[in-house]
Amino acid sequence: MHTPICDELGIEFPIFAFTHCRDVVVAVSKAGGFGVLGAVGFTPEQLEIELNWIDEHIGDHTYGVDIVIPNKYEGMDANMSAEELTTMLQSMVPQEHLDFGRKLLTDHGVPVEEGNDNALQLLGWTEATATPQVEIALRHPKMTLIANALGTPPAEMIKHIHDAGRKVAALCGSPKQARKHADAGVDIVIAQGGEGGGHCGEVGSIVLWPQVVKEIAPVPVLAAGGIGSGYQIAAALAMGAQGAWSGSQWLMVEEAENTAVQQETYAKATSRDTVRSRSFTGKPCRMLKNDWTEAWQTEGNPEPLGMPLQYMVSGMAVAATHKFPDQTIDVAFNPIGQVVGQFTKVEKSATVIERWVQEYLEATNTLNELNEAASV
Amino acid sequence: MHTPICDELGIEFPIFAFTHCRDVVVAVSKAGGFGVLGAVGFTPEQLEIELNWIDEHIGDHTYGVDIVIPNKYEGMDANMSAEELTTMLQSMVPQEHLDFGRKLLTDHGVPVEEGNDNALQLLGWTEATATPQVEIALRHPKMTLIANALGTPPAEMIKHIHDAGRKVAALCGSPKQARKHADAGVDIVIAQGGEGGGHCGEVGSIVLWPQVVKEIAPVPVLAAGGIGSGYQIAAALAMGAQGAWSGSQWLMVEEAENTAVQQETYAKATSRDTVRSRSFTGKPCRMLKNDWTEAWQTEGNPEPLGMPLQYMVSGMAVAATHKFPDQTIDVAFNPIGQVVGQFTKVEKSATVIERWVQEYLEATNTLNELNEAASV
Repeated sequence: MHTPICDELGIEFPIFAFTHCRDVVVAVSKAGGFGVLGAVGFTPEQLEIELNWIDEHIGDHTYGVDIVIPNKYEGMDANMSAEELTTMLQSMVPQEHLDFGRKLLTDHGVPVEEGNDNALQLLGWTEATATPQVEIALRHPKMTLIANALGTPPAEMIKHIHDAGRKVAALCGSPKQARKHADAGVDIVIAQGGEGGGHCGEVGSIVLWPQVVKEIAPVPVLAAGGIGSGYQIAAALAMGAQGAWSGSQWLMVEEAENTAVQQETYAKATSRDTVRSRSFTGKPCRMLKNDWTEAWQTEGNPEPLGMPLQYMVSGMAVAATHKFPDQTIDVAFNPIGQVVGQFTKVEKSATVIERWVQEYLEATNTLNELNEAASV
Repeated sequence: MHTPICDELGIEFPIFAFTHCRDVVVAVSKAGGFGVLGAVGFTPEQLEIELNWIDEHIGDHTYGVDIVIPNKYEGMDANMSAEELTTMLQSMVPQEHLDFGRKLLTDHGVPVEEGNDNALQLLGWTEATATPQVEIALRHPKMTLIANALGTPPAEMIKHIHDAGRKVAALCGSPKQARKHADAGVDIVIAQGGEGGGHCGEVGSIVLWPQVVKEIAPVPVLAAGGIGSGYQIAAALAMGAQGAWSGSQWLMVEEAENTAVQQETYAKATSRDTVRSRSFTGKPCRMLKNDWTEAWQTEGNPEPLGMPLQYMVSGMAVAATHKFPDQTIDVAFNPIGQVVGQFTKVEKSATVIERWVQEYLEATNTLNELNEAASV
């Protein structure tokens, strides 16, 4: 599965692993793939610590950082510092929503201590708070790719990253968005189908991928949304993608920080157990259905706020997940794609990469055998 | 793309074309694929006429018939004749729904003549009304495959079709349904992803197809939902499918009976312009969003009835489509999958088959070149 993008990034396999865990980034890059650290949940100081740790452990390999600058978010017209913006946004979160979130937690036996529950934190969900993350990332020479999860990065940011000799990627859910990315000078476009975990659109991968490839050729496209085996990577490459961008699989590896309760829940889930819900981030985001996602779409209950306000409520549930794994599972943020139905066990990251390469070869052999049979 | 199923059915390419037009059935089968006539809209007498016409024009080629026996429908516990069942179901359609449907049409300038508007027709949407269709189909020797669009066919029907030396196929949207089909003795399972046109589930093709292949191996699986090019067929075969089942593409061929207005609308639509709606058949069915689909999900308006009652209302819109193409386009039944975003023109059926075969070869060549590059 060696594609031109492998040479451009100096990697063996075009397998991109999106993860919030530094250990997974290192394990994937060392196994020949390309680890990408999701930065949104880290303060600039924490991010610096994570990247230093990665640098120390990753050897000669490279990695990427994923940020979140949405096309549109509440308060984005404000010309303010990160601190001022945070204060303004905090004042926009209704007390009713905070109370409702806290009640959902306490109803599930999760102790909630107001003022110490991680609510009202803005994190990296805006341009003002993501920009310092980019600055930090660019100080790390092995960090060779910055991806934006939502929307086209601002022009000056693209220029800044290019001037630093790094590449820019951006996710899209339609050929139109892909065209916008390509016109802005994005180097790699990640086409994510609606079956994907996290923020996603509604168009399925099998339809989306070839449309995006055609729209922006020769700009390289990575296929996302439904990647959990080498068979699916072969499908993506057959349709013209240069590689695969995966997220869900890396929640089911030994190196991940997900709780054992979460991983057991993922292992049991079928592909029908996920939902696109606005209940955690304010934008449609695919995750396991649970009491939290159901509650925020029940008539009569508060409706989810926009991005980034909703996370300033749901952050309390996210923060409680590691402290109270058993009590929170039905109110936790369990982002994962429909591919969850394929997962039955937790593997080592390196084992996943090896398995995917084997499955990819099996798939291409299948096609070769069919062509040979046809020509006999 | 020669797979074992080609030999079993005596066809050149494992390309299955679902269509309501006999001309398309003939054109596809003669071009090396396998045409399948959707029977649900025909009375037994009409179906007999269609199949006779196909027999006369298809030469030595074979074809299939698609029926609709849902797992569950209103009135299915009734032990009645088709006539009695029809009368009972007609009495269950609320006047409010009929009036609402008629108002939607008249508001769009479509003349509606009560009692002569094709409302209250049951058609082939139940076991009682589909069974005579099977009887008729089995009288035609070139008709070698009967597919059920919704659910596992009844055991006695499977046995009856097998005794007549024909094959049985059934559509599914999950590995669990696929297992049920396989256990019942269905010969070919069609795994249809949520991007597909017509009745579909929510799981995307890229996730669904390999799960179904794995679940019921070695029973052959056809990939459906998002097939509109040979690239997508290569993806399906790379994931273990034995062929492709397509529907949307065959609305965009010269031989189709769709109106020019419909085909222009399809040509302009993007993959984001479809919706899964219960507004025509009572079960979630993917089609172009329009005023009819929107109206039936607007709060305060009547909610769609179950299957088959809703079609006993929406039949009036379907019937008006050919008589008043310009006025009905915004209230017509335009079933099509997300793949609609790929379509820009109307082609001949044989040209589509040729194009798909070429694209398939391109896709497999792409993979071969990547493997060669990797081994250099």
